[in-house]
Amino acid sequence: MNSATFAYPDLFVPGASPPAPKWSGFPQYNFIGGHNDPDSIPSRDLSNAAAAVLEREGPTLATYRMQSGPLGYLPLRQFISRRVRDYARIECSPQDVLVTSGSGQGLDLVFDILLQPGDTVIIEQHSYGGAINNFKRRGVRLEGIALDDEGMRIDALEQRLDALRTEGVRPKMMYLIPTVQNPTGAIMGEPRRRELLAIAKSFEVPILEDECYSDLIWEGERPPALYALDADATVIHIGSFSKSISPALRIGYVISNWDVLSRLLPLKTDGGTGALDQMVLAEYCNEHFETHVATLSQRLQAKYVALTDALAEHFGTSAEFSTQRGGIYLWIKLPDAVDIVQLAAKALEAGIAINPGPEWSTDLEGTRSHLRICFANPALDTLHEGVGLLAQVCRDLTGVPEHIANR
Amino acid sequence: MNSATFAYPDLFVPGASPPAPKWSGFPQYNFIGGHNDPDSIPSRDLSNAAAAVLEREGPTLATYRMQSGPLGYLPLRQFISRRVRDYARIECSPQDVLVTSGSGQGLDLVFDILLQPGDTVIIEQHSYGGAINNFKRRGVRLEGIALDDEGMRIDALEQRLDALRTEGVRPKMMYLIPTVQNPTGAIMGEPRRRELLAIAKSFEVPILEDECYSDLIWEGERPPALYALDADATVIHIGSFSKSISPALRIGYVISNWDVLSRLLPLKTDGGTGALDQMVLAEYCNEHFETHVATLSQRLQAKYVALTDALAEHFGTSAEFSTQRGGIYLWIKLPDAVDIVQLAAKALEAGIAINPGPEWSTDLEGTRSHLRICFANPALDTLHEGVGLLAQVCRDLTGVPEHIANR
Repeated sequence: MNSATFAYPDLFVPGASPPAPKWSGFPQYNFIGGHNDPDSIPSRDLSNAAAAVLEREGPTLATYRMQSGPLGYLPLRQFISRRVRDYARIECSPQDVLVTSGSGQGLDLVFDILLQPGDTVIIEQHSYGGAINNFKRRGVRLEGIALDDEGMRIDALEQRLDALRTEGVRPKMMYLIPTVQNPTGAIMGEPRRRELLAIAKSFEVPILEDECYSDLIWEGERPPALYALDADATVIHIGSFSKSISPALRIGYVISNWDVLSRLLPLKTDGGTGALDQMVLAEYCNEHFETHVATLSQRLQAKYVALTDALAEHFGTSAEFSTQRGGIYLWIKLPDAVDIVQLAAKALEAGIAINPGPEWSTDLEGTRSHLRICFANPALDTLHEGVGLLAQVCRDLTGVPEHIANR
Repeated sequence: MNSATFAYPDLFVPGASPPAPKWSGFPQYNFIGGHNDPDSIPSRDLSNAAAAVLEREGPTLATYRMQSGPLGYLPLRQFISRRVRDYARIECSPQDVLVTSGSGQGLDLVFDILLQPGDTVIIEQHSYGGAINNFKRRGVRLEGIALDDEGMRIDALEQRLDALRTEGVRPKMMYLIPTVQNPTGAIMGEPRRRELLAIAKSFEVPILEDECYSDLIWEGERPPALYALDADATVIHIGSFSKSISPALRIGYVISNWDVLSRLLPLKTDGGTGALDQMVLAEYCNEHFETHVATLSQRLQAKYVALTDALAEHFGTSAEFSTQRGGIYLWIKLPDAVDIVQLAAKALEAGIAINPGPEWSTDLEGTRSHLRICFANPALDTLHEGVGLLAQVCRDLTGVPEHIANR
């Protein structure tokens, strides 16, 4: 056989992504990503659910999509439609639910049908880094709206929409995380939700609400979803089981009407979402979801308290953050002297992974000393240890905080 | 609240796909698609596998990708690398295996890194309809090479490559199904595989071999994969468990070196392939795969015999086809008088779904009387019944076959 006269790197299309680095495991202090805690996985109940559903419905695995059609496994869509009615006041039928391979696939599908390069999209000034990157890849112009403790500020939104109208620009959509906002943790109350909807309508901008964290509230009521308050079906609702059960299970969902779902389906070319992920989840959730998320939320609260205690102990007044009522992350402001991108790099060398603020914001300058810490994955003592180590790295690099507590 | 002054259909990007039709279940005689037979799903063993792996490894579900990194669940990659070594003579390590969400995702990823609009790709003249559509969506120029009972003809390939070279065209890749070719069922022998590799190298064209059906051979040996015969690692190998275990489980794989896999990974933006599909499959396969595929292949042979018997009975000499040694489909030539697209439409009204030849070929004119029948899903009597009904529909439409057997 002739020796090859060509090699793959020469064959890739121009502009291909740079190669992935080899994976070498998670950092010791894993304060990024939507991971859960190994102790919070209900292995035994999942195991029983898997055995039961496979015994009963195994033969349906013989066909693509298990006799449920392209919207996804019917018992899972039935569970989702009941759950969002009881919890988020969304009235919908299983025919209004599309099961997706994670909520990320849902975002991609909705963006695909609505967005073209050059389009304008309204988002919260600080928002989910994955969505921000996705918009950027699509060449979309992002308009970040200022936030307060209840999320997107209505006055700022209206002002910006007015200004855009003057420019002749009609935004193609608003992307929001109204319940346990990512990264700030804000929960928008019902009155503001109604104001937001009225403004979106008067400016003719559809809303995509991404509610991946809304199940994890440990204090107070969950307000109705925007979808539930919208009589005209212009809101598209996205949810996920990644944070409430497991991120390794790739199950999210889009709730909308058939006008929208029928356009998303031709773009969902994956041959269906994984059968066992769907079947086992539905079987498990029907019996255990409510008690599971109640317990999980309590555990998350304990971690949140541990994290804020550790920050107070190790950073003192140098770390500023708001009180939080749910979720898995904390948005923290360090003193202006801290360049968070530099700190994140140094911290990673010490085994601590954090999200630098500018990756989670449209305001790069205003977040140069902000960071996001995810607290769901580490054990309580790992959280404490990691924050202490981070304070040390930060002081070595910047002189902040001035005093490290003796322990 | 104001009434909405806009509606979704007005907001979709220009050129969006037409809406999906509502799903109304499978046709009664389901002779299309890579479905399996409900009786061939090992429900009990899958149920036991699920219970065992979740009891043992459930806590790993707490993190994205279950501590296995972006290439996929390690025990599954270990199984795949052992299996392809024993069965297809491929020497590879688990680090050379990327688990994908079905082999379709594998095709997409490989096409993404190699192909741009206007590029030329070599394929078998008759080939997998899904791949042909994928190439067309990408604006790729397809060069179909004539086939015989062993698959792609070497003389025809060499002639075409020469002609392209004269035009100054270097094809970006060859896409082949060398083992149980789709739709013809041909199995390429080892000597021809070696000739093919030598030509591909001399013309500097990389090969993507798609071996989704190679596990299902009921007569004779499986030749070594092209990947196994290629000392220079220019072949990319794709496989799947859709046909051997279940199409609802979304598990395929790409085998290649790190040069290639490291470029595919950044494009696999799905947050990992479904955890339970991977975990349960690996657990099941380690114990049962070999005996399962042996049994399944025998059952498929029985269905193949039933199908060819039914064709002989109902179509007589009007249906021409080759002898087959494996797979789940039969490629059939009807008399020239039959317009297969018309027949397929009429047959569907009678509850019979078939693949018209032109959808599975680059030679639209030469296949206007060809069809593909998938025989894995229907029960034996459904196969017989459906073929009888198809013959009736065909005679009503075209006068062919002249005589329908009395039964």
